[in-house]
Amino acid sequence: MNVLIVHAHNEPQSFCASMKNVAIQELEAQGHEVVVSDLYAMNWNPVASAADFGNRDNPEYLTYALEQRLNHKSGTLAADIQTELNKLLKADLVIFSFPIYWFSVPAILKGWFDRVLVSGACYGGMRFYDKGGLAGKKAMLAVTIGGQPHMLAENGIHGALNDMLKPVLRGTLAYTGMSVLPPFVAYHVPYIKPEARTAIMDDFKNCLNNLDALEPLKFVSMADFDEKLNPRH
Amino acid sequence: MNVLIVHAHNEPQSFCASMKNVAIQELEAQGHEVVVSDLYAMNWNPVASAADFGNRDNPEYLTYALEQRLNHKSGTLAADIQTELNKLLKADLVIFSFPIYWFSVPAILKGWFDRVLVSGACYGGMRFYDKGGLAGKKAMLAVTIGGQPHMLAENGIHGALNDMLKPVLRGTLAYTGMSVLPPFVAYHVPYIKPEARTAIMDDFKNCLNNLDALEPLKFVSMADFDEKLNPRH
Repeated sequence: MNVLIVHAHNEPQSFCASMKNVAIQELEAQGHEVVVSDLYAMNWNPVASAADFGNRDNPEYLTYALEQRLNHKSGTLAADIQTELNKLLKADLVIFSFPIYWFSVPAILKGWFDRVLVSGACYGGMRFYDKGGLAGKKAMLAVTIGGQPHMLAENGIHGALNDMLKPVLRGTLAYTGMSVLPPFVAYHVPYIKPEARTAIMDDFKNCLNNLDALEPLKFVSMADFDEKLNPRH
Repeated sequence: MNVLIVHAHNEPQSFCASMKNVAIQELEAQGHEVVVSDLYAMNWNPVASAADFGNRDNPEYLTYALEQRLNHKSGTLAADIQTELNKLLKADLVIFSFPIYWFSVPAILKGWFDRVLVSGACYGGMRFYDKGGLAGKKAMLAVTIGGQPHMLAENGIHGALNDMLKPVLRGTLAYTGMSVLPPFVAYHVPYIKPEARTAIMDDFKNCLNNLDALEPLKFVSMADFDEKLNPRH
């Protein structure tokens, strides 16, 4: 497989960064090609703007997604976007490695979604969810979080973590057609002892060595909706 | 009231920007003080990093929230963060004006959450949800989205919009203690006729003139959880 790891942590010694390093090791040991986009190290620009386009359908008025479509077609996307898009299109599996900030991705990674998941390439028109442009690829989150599992359970104070992550899991990754594997979550990371960290890392290695056994999360199918996107039943 | 509008759109002529301008007019006409943070115009930096701190508890290893706490206490947060935090702390009502990107906020606004909602000032320890540091303030989203209402309904293809916005509404705004008013949503904006836009703007004006009548969304209360954050019943 071609694997892309998109990593977004501002501390290179963090547990999250160690998880990313372990993922590289384990996946390369399995014979996969691994490419890493370390967004902080790359000084990635997360801000979607007019500067992203070498060409403009409407130079007077910016509609970001429309200009994405045009500039993808004409090969005039900004170089940093095109580089990331090429990595993404080549990947069979994409791992997003990040600490949960405000029950979501850090801004630097949100800006990777905003800029790299280009309309016309990754989705567009009626091409989304199981008809999305990235159908056939797998995606997985590998995250660290300060909270404990009981705080992120169905009846917990924050509700289920996968519910909080719905705009990412369903609204972003599944939307583009990717099969979304269950997230690997390292809980309570800033507060736990080294032995507990070792146990989490062992679980993560085990997960990485059994990716094929993971059942993707279930989301909607376009077949259940008509051409106006009303539910068929 | 003191009102802060945090606006995040990359096209100054957009409908979203017009909504922001209408909000300024209507709220000033009501006698409120309105301050605007126009994130694109300010060239706001959304990336949470070590550069945000003039002082370090641990100069060798960055734990972002811990350094926020220390630097808030010692008054050594980066100037751009401190300026925004001062605006936020002075506000009685905060309106977030933005186009929905990937069922969430654009990265430039996510980075306002990441950097300005400072641990120690806005939340921290057991001070969150109804005990949060921003209790007593109101927050409202005023958003534009390409989709139509039936696509963002409970049985719609994306599910309910407020479910998708849960990490923002509950996990961010309510988490810091703010009373979260129902979002004002302008649907299908890129595709509708001028008359339909006028009707939406009239609805928005009406909403702005009846803010007191809006019932805040209901979320959890700390009273329902014990000191280990297990549910009491």
